[in-house]
Amino acid sequence: MGKVKVFGAWVSPFSMRVKVALQMKGVEYDYVEEDLLNKSEDLLNYNPIHNKVPVMLIDGKPIAESLVIMDYIDEAWTHNPILPSDPYERARARFWAKFIDDTLFPQLIVVFMSHGEESEKATKEVDELLTIFEKELNGKKFFGGDNIGFLDIVASILAIWIPCSQVVIGKELIARAKHPWVYTWADHLLQCTVIKQNMPDQHKLEAYYQARFASMNIKVDQSE
Amino acid sequence: MGKVKVFGAWVSPFSMRVKVALQMKGVEYDYVEEDLLNKSEDLLNYNPIHNKVPVMLIDGKPIAESLVIMDYIDEAWTHNPILPSDPYERARARFWAKFIDDTLFPQLIVVFMSHGEESEKATKEVDELLTIFEKELNGKKFFGGDNIGFLDIVASILAIWIPCSQVVIGKELIARAKHPWVYTWADHLLQCTVIKQNMPDQHKLEAYYQARFASMNIKVDQSE
Repeated sequence: MGKVKVFGAWVSPFSMRVKVALQMKGVEYDYVEEDLLNKSEDLLNYNPIHNKVPVMLIDGKPIAESLVIMDYIDEAWTHNPILPSDPYERARARFWAKFIDDTLFPQLIVVFMSHGEESEKATKEVDELLTIFEKELNGKKFFGGDNIGFLDIVASILAIWIPCSQVVIGKELIARAKHPWVYTWADHLLQCTVIKQNMPDQHKLEAYYQARFASMNIKVDQSE
Repeated sequence: MGKVKVFGAWVSPFSMRVKVALQMKGVEYDYVEEDLLNKSEDLLNYNPIHNKVPVMLIDGKPIAESLVIMDYIDEAWTHNPILPSDPYERARARFWAKFIDDTLFPQLIVVFMSHGEESEKATKEVDELLTIFEKELNGKKFFGGDNIGFLDIVASILAIWIPCSQVVIGKELIARAKHPWVYTWADHLLQCTVIKQNMPDQHKLEAYYQARFASMNIKVDQSE
C-alpha cells in the first residue's frame, strides 16, 4: 500500500485517532513528533491551508484532517473494519463524529478559554450536548457495539482530554451522576490495548495543560 | 433500499447536494419543502441538534448533514459512483469538501454579514482561499475528471450562490481575470442536466437574497 508517515503531536486527540486507526489495521509507519509552538517546514508544506497535525503521507502524498485520514485508512486497508459495515450505521457514526468536532469541541474550547457568565453558559451547553450524545450509547459497551470502532476513537477526547482538563481547571464538566454511560463507556475504552498504547500519559498531559493554561492567564486549580 | 424522503429548501445549496446525488443514482423520493423562517415540527424532530435542512429519511430513519447524506447515498446505491474509486482521490475530495464547508463558506458569510474593514478582510481571505482551491482543478473539466462527481456537487455553491450574491450586493467575489478556471468549471457544471434540473431559478434566488439582505440591513445593489 506504500510507505506511511504520520506528522502528529502527543497532546493532540486528533493525532491519536490516526495512530489508533493505523494500529488497528496493523500498518507500520514512520512518526514525526511536531512541536505545536514551532511547527516544522514539512508540516506547513504538507498542510498549507490549516497548518495542523495530523498529516499522513502515503508514498509522500499528504492527507490532512483526522476524520478524512480515518476514512482513508479504513478504505485503503479493508481488513479489521473501523467504520460499521451497514450504510445507515456508517452515516450515524459519521454524523456523531462531525457533531463532536464541529459542535461539542468548539463549546469545550469556550468553556476553557472564557470567563464568568460566558464560561458558565458554555458549560451548561456542553452538559446538554452530552445528554443528547449519551443516548447514542443506549446501553452498549462501545458506540460501535461490542468492539471499539470509528466513533469510539473519535470520542476518546471525552475519556482522556476532558477528565484531564477537569483536573487542571478544577471544574467538573462531565458529572458522573448525570452522565453515567459516558463514564461506563470511558472505562471500557481505557481498557483497550490499542488505546492504552497510543494515549498520552495522564500526568504528563495534566502538567502540559497546567503550563499552557497558566501561560494564557486561564485560572488553574492550584489545590493539587 | 427502502422509502426515501427528503426535507429541503429550494434556497439551500446543502439541500441541492442531496437532490443531485439522488438523481445521479436514479432514486425516487418524496420531497418536503421547508420554510426556513418557520420550520416544520417534523424537521425539528428529525434533526433536533442542528434544526437544519437537509434531512433524509430512509424508511423513517433520519440522516442529517449534507456530506454525511452524500456518503450514505454513494454507499447504499453503489451504481453510478459519486466519490472517486481510488482511496487517495476519495480522501482529496473529502478534504476539499470539508474545506468548502468549514473554511470557505464561513468566510463568505463574513463577507456578506459584516461591514467595512472586516468585510474587506474576509473578501481578501476568500480570494486567497479560491486561489488555493483553484489549483485542485488543474486544467480538468470537473474536479472529478471528465464527469461531475462528489466535489463538483459540493462546490456548486461557487457556480450558483456566489454569482447570485455578487449581483445582489454589487461586489465581485470571484474575479474572472484572477480565477479563470473557476469560471470555466462553472460553465461546465451549469451545462449538466442533473444540475440544471435541481438548481434554483437564478432570478428567484436573487430576489430572495435581495429581500433577505434588505431585511437584515445589509447593503444591496439597487442599480438593477
